[in-house]
Amino acid sequence: MGRVVIDVMPKPEILDPQGKAVVGALPRLGFDAFVGVRQGKRFELEVEGEVTPEVLDQARAAAEKLLSNPVIEDVVSVRAAEAQA
Amino acid sequence: MGRVVIDVMPKPEILDPQGKAVVGALPRLGFDAFVGVRQGKRFELEVEGEVTPEVLDQARAAAEKLLSNPVIEDVVSVRAAEAQA
Repeated sequence: MGRVVIDVMPKPEILDPQGKAVVGALPRLGFDAFVGVRQGKRFELEVEGEVTPEVLDQARAAAEKLLSNPVIEDVVSVRAAEAQA
Repeated sequence: MGRVVIDVMPKPEILDPQGKAVVGALPRLGFDAFVGVRQGKRFELEVEGEVTPEVLDQARAAAEKLLSNPVIEDVVSVRAAEAQA
């Protein structure tokens, strides 16, 4: 069983209210090391068998067409991952 | 400017309605390679200066306490990332 991991993040110039909420909450919990937070999405797509170059091509196309909104988000990574339990 | 990347995914035994919606939509768009999808979250935490072991410790603690719900989610990765623009 192969697995493709896709990371989608809000574009840098787009306001990220979830990230802003996190960066405001961190110091209240005693975490003072962080000056900025962005929150995005991570998808794990399972395939039967191996992650072939054709599967990666499909995953890249799906990331652009379905998993991200290209107006406000960037697909930052599409890669094969080791299968997990 | 350093950066810590944190990945949070729904636990395998937990129903993931967003992932289910994606896995249903993929074949309708012609993407037939995928048999399962899980959708999680990806956080990028920015720090002034370098990502030290202390910063990573704080990031790990924040991931468990604030960024994930341990009942339904697993923190699958906390790591330093190269700084981007």
